[in-house]
Amino acid sequence: MSSIQKESMYTLYYAPNTASMVVHLALLEAQAAYQLEKVDFSIRAQKDPAYLALNPQGVVPTLVHEGVAYQETPAILMLLAEHFPDAGLMPAAGSVAHARCREWLFYLSHNLHATYRLWFYPETLGFSDYPSGLKEDLQTRMAGFWDFLEAHLQKNGPYLCGDQLSLADFYLTVLMRWSRHMPRPATGWPALQQLAARVAQRPSWQLMCERESPEPWHPGAPA
Amino acid sequence: MSSIQKESMYTLYYAPNTASMVVHLALLEAQAAYQLEKVDFSIRAQKDPAYLALNPQGVVPTLVHEGVAYQETPAILMLLAEHFPDAGLMPAAGSVAHARCREWLFYLSHNLHATYRLWFYPETLGFSDYPSGLKEDLQTRMAGFWDFLEAHLQKNGPYLCGDQLSLADFYLTVLMRWSRHMPRPATGWPALQQLAARVAQRPSWQLMCERESPEPWHPGAPA
Ligand SMILES: N[C@@H](CCC(=O)N[C@@H](CS)C(=O)NCC(=O)O)C(=O)O
Ligand SMILES: N[C@@H](CCC(=O)N[C@@H](CS)C(=O)NCC(=O)O)C(=O)O
Repeated sequence: MSSIQKESMYTLYYAPNTASMVVHLALLEAQAAYQLEKVDFSIRAQKDPAYLALNPQGVVPTLVHEGVAYQETPAILMLLAEHFPDAGLMPAAGSVAHARCREWLFYLSHNLHATYRLWFYPETLGFSDYPSGLKEDLQTRMAGFWDFLEAHLQKNGPYLCGDQLSLADFYLTVLMRWSRHMPRPATGWPALQQLAARVAQRPSWQLMCERESPEPWHPGAPA
Repeated sequence: MSSIQKESMYTLYYAPNTASMVVHLALLEAQAAYQLEKVDFSIRAQKDPAYLALNPQGVVPTLVHEGVAYQETPAILMLLAEHFPDAGLMPAAGSVAHARCREWLFYLSHNLHATYRLWFYPETLGFSDYPSGLKEDLQTRMAGFWDFLEAHLQKNGPYLCGDQLSLADFYLTVLMRWSRHMPRPATGWPALQQLAARVAQRPSWQLMCERESPEPWHPGAPA
C-alpha cells in the first residue's frame, strides 16, 4: 500500500446495530479505504480509558483519520461528504439543497436519535426501569416524528431531499431500523417504508450487513 | 436600499428567551442586514398555519433568506458561517478546527438542547406534570453535561474550539442561560462561567438584549 493510501485510511470504531452503521454505509458509498475496530459493549469497552481518549463521551461511532478522532454521527457524515465531494453523499456544498440536507441531519439527531436514547437507556433519566406509561409516551412521541416525516416525504419525496438520495436517508433508515421491536415500527408508514426499502437494497447496505452481522431486518420491497 | 441589499436581507422569526437568540447573535456578529418578526407564544402563533408553512415543526427560530425558510438552530448557524466566511463565525471551512466546531454544534443540539425540551415541555413525554423524581433526574443529566463541558474547557479552553471564539460558544451560552432557574445553574462551573461571561460582554449580546428584551441574566464578570 502506498503511503498516500495509508494516510487516507479511515478507522471506524463501531458496534453492530448502533449508529456506527450509518458511518460504515457512508464509507462504503464513498468507496473509502477503511478498517473496522469493534467496540465490545458486552465488556463495556466503550468506557475503557483507551477508548475514552478517542471519544470522551464513551459512545460509538468514532472515526479516526490522519490521527484525528471524530465523533457525533451526523458530523462525521458531513465530514465524509466533504472528503468525497464526487460521491454524491450530499447535494453540492453551498447549494440550498445542501443546507436542507444539513437541516435534516440536525433534525434527525435532535429528535429521533435523542429520543431513542431514552427508549434504550432508561438510566439516562435516572430510571433503573421504565415508570408506568413512559414507554407508551415515548412510542407516541416517536409516532409523531414518523407522521411528520411521512407528511414531508408524501409531499416532497421520495427521499428527504426530494429526488436526490443522500446521507440523511441512510441515517433515517438506520433510525427506522431501531423501531423494529417497538409496538409501531416505522415501516408501518408507507413513504418511510419505501425509502428504507430502497436504501436497504443498495450494495452498500448488503456489504455493511455482511461485515457487521447485525440482527436481520427486512423493511420490505420497493414498489 | 439598493436591490442587492434587499435581496440579501434576512428575516428572523424569533421569540424572546428561546433558541432564536443565538441566530440573532450570529446575524449581529456577521453584521448582516436583517429584520425581526416576533412569534407570539402567548397566542400560540408558532402553530399558526401561516407560520407552519415556513416551519412545519412549529418552533422558532426560522430564518428566511431569498425566499427560502431555514430551520434547526445549529444548521442556521452553519448557513450563516457559510454566507459570511470572513466574519470569524466558525474556523475556516475544510479545516480540522471547522470539523470540530461542527461536532460541538451537533453535541449541543443532541444532548443539551434536546434534554431542555423535556425540562420545559413535560408534555413532550406525555406528562401533564412532572412525575416525582423526573425533575431531579433531568437536573442530574444536565449536570453530567456541564461536567463534561467543564472538563473539556479546563483542558482545551477557554472556548469550545480552543483559542477561537465561535458560534458554538454562543449556542452554549444561550443554553447555559436557560439553566438560570434550575437548582444548579451552569454558571456554577468555573470554566463555563468564564466562557459565558466573555460572550455576554460582547456588543452583539448587548444589542440582542436591547432588541429582544429577554429576562435579564448576568453570568458574572470575566476574570
Ligand atoms: N450523539 C452521538 C450519540 C451516539 C450514541 O448514542 N451511541 C450509542 C449507540 S447508538 C452508544 O454508543 N451507546 C453506548 C453507551 O452509551 O454506553 C452520535 O450521534 O454519535
Ligand atoms: N431543533 C429545533 C428546536 C427548536 C425549539 O425547540 N424551539 C423552541 C424554543 S427554544 C420552541 O419554538 N418552542 C415552542 C413550541 O414547541 O411550541 C432547533 O434547533 O431550532
